[in-house]
Amino acid sequence: MNALAEAAPAAERIVVPVALAERSYDILIGRHQLCEAAQVIASRFPGARAAIVTDTNLATLHAPALESCLQQAGVTATRLTIPPGESSKSYARFSELCDGLLAAKIERNDLVIALGGGVVGDLSGFAASVLRRGVRLVQIPTSLLAQVDSSVGGKTGINSSHGKNLIGAFHQPALVVCDTALLDTLSEREFKAGYAEVVKYGLIDDAAFFDWCEVNWRRVMEGGPERDHAVATACRAKAAVVARDEREDGDRALLNLGHTFAHALERLTRYDSARLVHGEAVAIGLSLAFRFSQRLGLCSGQDAGRVAAHLAAVGLPTRLQDVPGGAGTASDIVEAMTQDKKVKRGALTFILAHGIGKSFIAPGVATETAHDFIESELVERI
Amino acid sequence: MNALAEAAPAAERIVVPVALAERSYDILIGRHQLCEAAQVIASRFPGARAAIVTDTNLATLHAPALESCLQQAGVTATRLTIPPGESSKSYARFSELCDGLLAAKIERNDLVIALGGGVVGDLSGFAASVLRRGVRLVQIPTSLLAQVDSSVGGKTGINSSHGKNLIGAFHQPALVVCDTALLDTLSEREFKAGYAEVVKYGLIDDAAFFDWCEVNWRRVMEGGPERDHAVATACRAKAAVVARDEREDGDRALLNLGHTFAHALERLTRYDSARLVHGEAVAIGLSLAFRFSQRLGLCSGQDAGRVAAHLAAVGLPTRLQDVPGGAGTASDIVEAMTQDKKVKRGALTFILAHGIGKSFIAPGVATETAHDFIESELVERI
Ligand SMILES: NC(=O)c1ccc[n+]([C@@H]2O[C@H](COP(=O)([O-])OP(=O)(O)OC[C@H]3O[C@@H](n4cnc5c(N)ncnc54)[C@H](O)[C@@H]3O)[C@@H](O)[C@H]2O)c1
Ligand SMILES: NC(=O)c1ccc[n+]([C@@H]2O[C@H](COP(=O)([O-])OP(=O)(O)OC[C@H]3O[C@@H](n4cnc5c(N)ncnc54)[C@H](O)[C@@H]3O)[C@@H](O)[C@H]2O)c1
Repeated sequence: MNALAEAAPAAERIVVPVALAERSYDILIGRHQLCEAAQVIASRFPGARAAIVTDTNLATLHAPALESCLQQAGVTATRLTIPPGESSKSYARFSELCDGLLAAKIERNDLVIALGGGVVGDLSGFAASVLRRGVRLVQIPTSLLAQVDSSVGGKTGINSSHGKNLIGAFHQPALVVCDTALLDTLSEREFKAGYAEVVKYGLIDDAAFFDWCEVNWRRVMEGGPERDHAVATACRAKAAVVARDEREDGDRALLNLGHTFAHALERLTRYDSARLVHGEAVAIGLSLAFRFSQRLGLCSGQDAGRVAAHLAAVGLPTRLQDVPGGAGTASDIVEAMTQDKKVKRGALTFILAHGIGKSFIAPGVATETAHDFIESELVERI
Repeated sequence: MNALAEAAPAAERIVVPVALAERSYDILIGRHQLCEAAQVIASRFPGARAAIVTDTNLATLHAPALESCLQQAGVTATRLTIPPGESSKSYARFSELCDGLLAAKIERNDLVIALGGGVVGDLSGFAASVLRRGVRLVQIPTSLLAQVDSSVGGKTGINSSHGKNLIGAFHQPALVVCDTALLDTLSEREFKAGYAEVVKYGLIDDAAFFDWCEVNWRRVMEGGPERDHAVATACRAKAAVVARDEREDGDRALLNLGHTFAHALERLTRYDSARLVHGEAVAIGLSLAFRFSQRLGLCSGQDAGRVAAHLAAVGLPTRLQDVPGGAGTASDIVEAMTQDKKVKRGALTFILAHGIGKSFIAPGVATETAHDFIESELVERI
């Protein structure tokens, strides 16, 4: 695997290894990596056929380029397209996609290539994990959120009417390719939403990276080396956590910083992306997690203030009042949190922080404590 | 785990361990084991709630007994019932079952208990493997086929219109309980069908067990210690293969003895159990595998004759002509075999034998060779 890192000019491509014994893989990061990715696929998986799964947006924007790169590299590929948006993470699309992959004659040594955002990655990753009891998956994430979060770590899945991501599998990809030039076509709103997850890694355990974000965020948006650095830093952080705790039995839960609140808000806004997309909910969740920590006397008001100020400067929401149409009452929010799968026998688990870069898992937070905090947020900030 | 084996009176319960490192588990075998199973569940998985998945036949016959045993042992259980038969291994039942398990609030530390034949086991095993990305599964197989084959080894799955078991997961159970008294209510036809899989283990690599079967098969049908011995021998054989090759990358494929033919016949009879059930197709497949081996000069005519004679004595079909309504032409059968997932890039893989107890994997058998053999079978035996 190191041979790759040496062969590529350092400035152009960053290789982040994910160390998971026989399930180890590389994340390749850089601009204009599609043809290089096709070469890597052809050499690492000789003879494998590929099915590209993508959504209708990416089918126009980037699938043709990937297909011509694969063709040049001698890889036979077919394309399967799903509608964009969270509603594609459904049982119905799952069974359609599985049947589509079978119709495309994808066998156990072949590949599924997920070209898209987290929706395409989660759905096609789950399909790949169960097709013939598991075929290889290559993730080519096209949204910032997917590049820094969902494509790495092997979580795949679909939603049920009982909640998000409740049906799924751990299925590590065989390769992840983050072509940061693909993000040039992403809407500003989606880019910012993904950026909330970038900031999260600084807040978890890398205060220096948070400092860097405060200074460099505009250049991350514009593209160029800062964008690649941000994606690589996020991937390295996620890879390290996943390597320590592949199946979230322990401190992988740190990655849920901001997410207990975020999932509740997404649930209360009925996953209506017109109102709130995941990363926006995370931005509010990060701000709340730090203010909650402050209120519990764990974290300074200065740190909590910096977190919200940076996210707001970028143009992300940071308060419950920022949810279009409102998030509901404190009871609604607590109720929505207790339906989350991170609930263990009634007690709520939060990720809290002693400061920027000092997050920790706090299991067993009483629902009343959370309720009081949320109520104060709703009152104080009207 | 050995503590268990010591605690139980040897004559009453046999414990077969399946050695798979951190996924190891026990198979408990004996008559009237439901209440003991409930005790084991209560002590090994303290605090876990259980969802019993069963079919409408078992719901009347055996679910109430299991439920009262669980209640006595202090385990909270709910019941989810599916229609009996292969058609329940569908996307539609899968999503219904997942939603049912979520509605029953089965969380990551809870249990799914599959009480039924291979259909219940395969469907609920698959659902357990993906529910919240994996919850524990206890198999309580109620058909002979499920006790000696499908409940052990972790293969789970559902069917697609493209073929059987094409969507699924490897998900090892946490415990398997083979209560051989449950088989008393099984129809003679289903019992015999399961018996074909028992004989298979002798044919693969245990000639002495095949000898034993020829002598003792009637007592296996009647119940008593011979039945337990047969189930335990089969489970031990399967456990050993699975421990060597959990994900069928190598010699686990030996368990497919007779199955390349069997799957083709099931496909050609459209999985219509009125015409052919799986074990009957396997009985024909075993006979064909030995006659094919004989024709290729690998195996003596005497051994091939003994295989068919024993299966016929039990009342199982052994010839293509035994398929009600006919199996189709040689081309139909070869065509159906090439659609099977054991096909690698056009070449057919068979399990062939140098004699009883001397089976081996034969990859790359030319389709013409198979075609000629099948044609001779259809001609010679009209
Ligand atoms: N598996 C995990 O570990 C994990 C982690 C975090 C989030 N997720 C999941 O990820 C999903 C969200 O992912 P997402 O934010 O990428 O959403 P998404 O996949 O819906 O993409 C957002 C929108 O951007 C479009 N898009 C994507 N790339 C584009 C590009 N390069 N140019 C133009 N448009 C582009 C898509 O077509 C879509 O309309 C959620 O379902 C969430 O549950 C999974
Ligand atoms: N997972 C594996 O490794 C594996 C291996 C072999 C077969 N299989 C699968 O197993 C399935 C076949 O299993 P099966 O033969 O048990 O079929 P099944 O589950 O359909 O059961 C056969 C019939 O017997 C009834 N029944 C079961 N137990 C009974 C009892 N104790 N008393 C009365 N009736 C009872 C059932 O209700 C059903 O009507 C197939 O789908 C096959 O693909 C899986």
